[in-house]
Amino acid sequence: MAATLTHIGASGEANMVDVGDKAETTRTAIAEGTVAMRPETLALILSGNAKKGDVLGTARIAGIMAAKRTHELIPLCHPLLLTKVSVEIEPDEALPGLRITALARVTGKTGVEMEALTAASVACLTIYDMAKAADRGMVISGIRLVEKTGGKSGDYKAGE
Amino acid sequence: MAATLTHIGASGEANMVDVGDKAETTRTAIAEGTVAMRPETLALILSGNAKKGDVLGTARIAGIMAAKRTHELIPLCHPLLLTKVSVEIEPDEALPGLRITALARVTGKTGVEMEALTAASVACLTIYDMAKAADRGMVISGIRLVEKTGGKSGDYKAGE
Amino acid sequence: MAATLTHIGASGEANMVDVGDKAETTRTAIAEGTVAMRPETLALILSGNAKKGDVLGTARIAGIMAAKRTHELIPLCHPLLLTKVSVEIEPDEALPGLRITALARVTGKTGVEMEALTAASVACLTIYDMAKAADRGMVISGIRLVEKTGGKSGDYKAGE
Amino acid sequence: MAATLTHIGASGEANMVDVGDKAETTRTAIAEGTVAMRPETLALILSGNAKKGDVLGTARIAGIMAAKRTHELIPLCHPLLLTKVSVEIEPDEALPGLRITALARVTGKTGVEMEALTAASVACLTIYDMAKAADRGMVISGIRLVEKTGGKSGDYKAGE
Amino acid sequence: MAATLTHIGASGEANMVDVGDKAETTRTAIAEGTVAMRPETLALILSGNAKKGDVLGTARIAGIMAAKRTHELIPLCHPLLLTKVSVEIEPDEALPGLRITALARVTGKTGVEMEALTAASVACLTIYDMAKAADRGMVISGIRLVEKTGGKSGDYKAGE
Amino acid sequence: MAATLTHIGASGEANMVDVGDKAETTRTAIAEGTVAMRPETLALILSGNAKKGDVLGTARIAGIMAAKRTHELIPLCHPLLLTKVSVEIEPDEALPGLRITALARVTGKTGVEMEALTAASVACLTIYDMAKAADRGMVISGIRLVEKTGGKSGDYKAGE
Repeated sequence: MAATLTHIGASGEANMVDVGDKAETTRTAIAEGTVAMRPETLALILSGNAKKGDVLGTARIAGIMAAKRTHELIPLCHPLLLTKVSVEIEPDEALPGLRITALARVTGKTGVEMEALTAASVACLTIYDMAKAADRGMVISGIRLVEKTGGKSGDYKAGE
Repeated sequence: MAATLTHIGASGEANMVDVGDKAETTRTAIAEGTVAMRPETLALILSGNAKKGDVLGTARIAGIMAAKRTHELIPLCHPLLLTKVSVEIEPDEALPGLRITALARVTGKTGVEMEALTAASVACLTIYDMAKAADRGMVISGIRLVEKTGGKSGDYKAGE
Repeated sequence: MAATLTHIGASGEANMVDVGDKAETTRTAIAEGTVAMRPETLALILSGNAKKGDVLGTARIAGIMAAKRTHELIPLCHPLLLTKVSVEIEPDEALPGLRITALARVTGKTGVEMEALTAASVACLTIYDMAKAADRGMVISGIRLVEKTGGKSGDYKAGE
Repeated sequence: MAATLTHIGASGEANMVDVGDKAETTRTAIAEGTVAMRPETLALILSGNAKKGDVLGTARIAGIMAAKRTHELIPLCHPLLLTKVSVEIEPDEALPGLRITALARVTGKTGVEMEALTAASVACLTIYDMAKAADRGMVISGIRLVEKTGGKSGDYKAGE
Repeated sequence: MAATLTHIGASGEANMVDVGDKAETTRTAIAEGTVAMRPETLALILSGNAKKGDVLGTARIAGIMAAKRTHELIPLCHPLLLTKVSVEIEPDEALPGLRITALARVTGKTGVEMEALTAASVACLTIYDMAKAADRGMVISGIRLVEKTGGKSGDYKAGE
Repeated sequence: MAATLTHIGASGEANMVDVGDKAETTRTAIAEGTVAMRPETLALILSGNAKKGDVLGTARIAGIMAAKRTHELIPLCHPLLLTKVSVEIEPDEALPGLRITALARVTGKTGVEMEALTAASVACLTIYDMAKAADRGMVISGIRLVEKTGGKSGDYKAGE
């Protein structure tokens, strides 16, 4: 069996895949990403956060809102009715930096990998934005699908 | 001098920084990112690309369009009048995968780092979307600011 | 039974509630709001309206279009497929001013209170915008849910 | 001098006013609004807030983001380059409820009243959304322009 | 039987039609349009296209993305979950120019004529944009519904 | 001198043109388009219009709002600060149908042809939407630039 690019037709044009005949099932995707930074930048964010939580809180809200706009950003993504989006952000002293985990869920005809990945990416970008005056050298890495359940193509777990 | 989080007020609330008194200058930012994938996925994209270029072309357009919507996605970014956005995508056999470089330019009161980073991120996500049926294990990494010129805070070059 | 903030998790983070297990039912919400103004401002709007109806017509269209974008504006609102939105605007000499009533309906897993409230709010803001050169002292008040039917939490009628 | 509706032409059609000949000046507008609620709802929000500040923080972010989209929501508003938006939310035991104050600033050809009013409105709506499971009877009121400086039409202060 | 304007109520106000009671069926619409231009402009686009296909590829992507935003652009259109959108662009030496065909499909309560027409229109506008420096006299014509299937009002084929 | 496609680079990629060095001048563009329909459809719209003007009023508002979103729809358009947009709609018994004229103006570095063309197109599409239940055979034609002033490339008048 040859793998194919599902969005590319026989003559090479990019188009939205027809999902009309797919079953409506509950589909969940979890994605993650990291923002690596200098230790003092991490300390600054966490101490700023001690007050009212706004750096992490703002990044979380930005990620959730971006998930809802995934089909506007990614040209061939289907619109869908997300039933849940959540974003968690934890400090990771080993990076040092922050680790973002995003979950998206839908009852629908298409998977939500792109929604979870978009939420994680935009949460990372928002952290960059809010801390960039202190540290322009931050790097966003490891944006990837961690896990996916539901849908015809079966479950997926990174690293298996 | 203590570094500070410019978006966080004395009492901890996140708010847009006042840029009203900043000078209107020409500001340019270059950002990059990579999508690492299996060698056969890269071959698939490049061969699909041989026909009509739609994977890379679609990702480039998605990145450019996303740059224009940065202030809608990143909560505390200022709206600005981008005078130029460009996105380049090159294969990198060493990854293996694709390397995305995005440039944003403005004549205005604020920098365009976030616009370049957003363009690079969304181009990466679009590549993921178009090839994910063939390879769910792709990883987006190295989203970072490469270079920035213009503006009061001075020029910046990664690694210097 | 303790009331809770459904959007706030046990550890305090704001996230979208999971509505995946809710039933798809027909849900309707009616919201209202008022714009109080000087009597001569009201007369001006109503006489301008006598010609082609554009002040009230424009506000009505703005409210309807805003209802469709509620999930983009309110961070933790779920996207949904509105089956009907209508906005009515009536003069109220007692205010004096205009009284806006908005109705939103969906067959779906979540209620449409926010859609009706957003439609009413944006219709009010549009009236303010169109008449502000004549009267900057207008006040928008009484934005509230009038009635809601459908959904697990039961029907609601203001004042009961 | 007869007051007029600046958006309505001689024949009654609604159109965007031509601001091409207006001077570029610094313009600031401050708007406010309130969300009245039961005392226990206020207590619930404030105690929830004690943890990580997410109700008020989320509403503040929603207001700021909405200000940037004012010209998409209000049909005849001009797009503009906001240089600053801030939203403050304070408890008011007398309501009881929350009092929202929004400030918008621009260096441009048009005022920013609508941006400040939109920020205040959407922050109020977001509070309603996050607390509505506990209290559907909340009422948003007193959305009004508090103060405006800059621009040809002169400064304005509510109540003067 | 008198034909009526379904969006206009008995008293003349424009409002969204209630589609809550319509059946969920598979609905498809095909629309087309043309961009007439000078023969040398067509040659220029097609030769530019020989390299990487970007004029036609960009227009195709723009049309697909616009279809997803139809309900944001057309005031009384219902939001819906498109299951497929495709755009094809063929040269037509007789015009001379380009002929655009757009297909939209949904499983839902409302038809997708406007989505197909919007995709065709925005693809045409994008072609105009990309070639306008060479030829400002291009004309977009013949934007029409070619065919529609599904839904209560029955199938439709242009010219029958 | 060879005409070129300004959005296409030497290697064929589509990118936004750099307008950073262009002068800020006042630029105006006027575009038009028509919607041809059966005479009874025109009569229906005009009589519906006699009541509150909502078909034509709604189309006009839709066109104005779309002009402000042109850079979101057309991939390589620059964002700009429109200072004026107006849309006029007149019946044309000869078609029979409606003739739409849209004007866009800016003080900026780029022309506003696409904004005027987009306003005209979306106004036409909105008319189609509102009358389609009575007449699916309507055709949108003659979307073209009528006139353009300002900017380095000089003035343009269709047919000269």
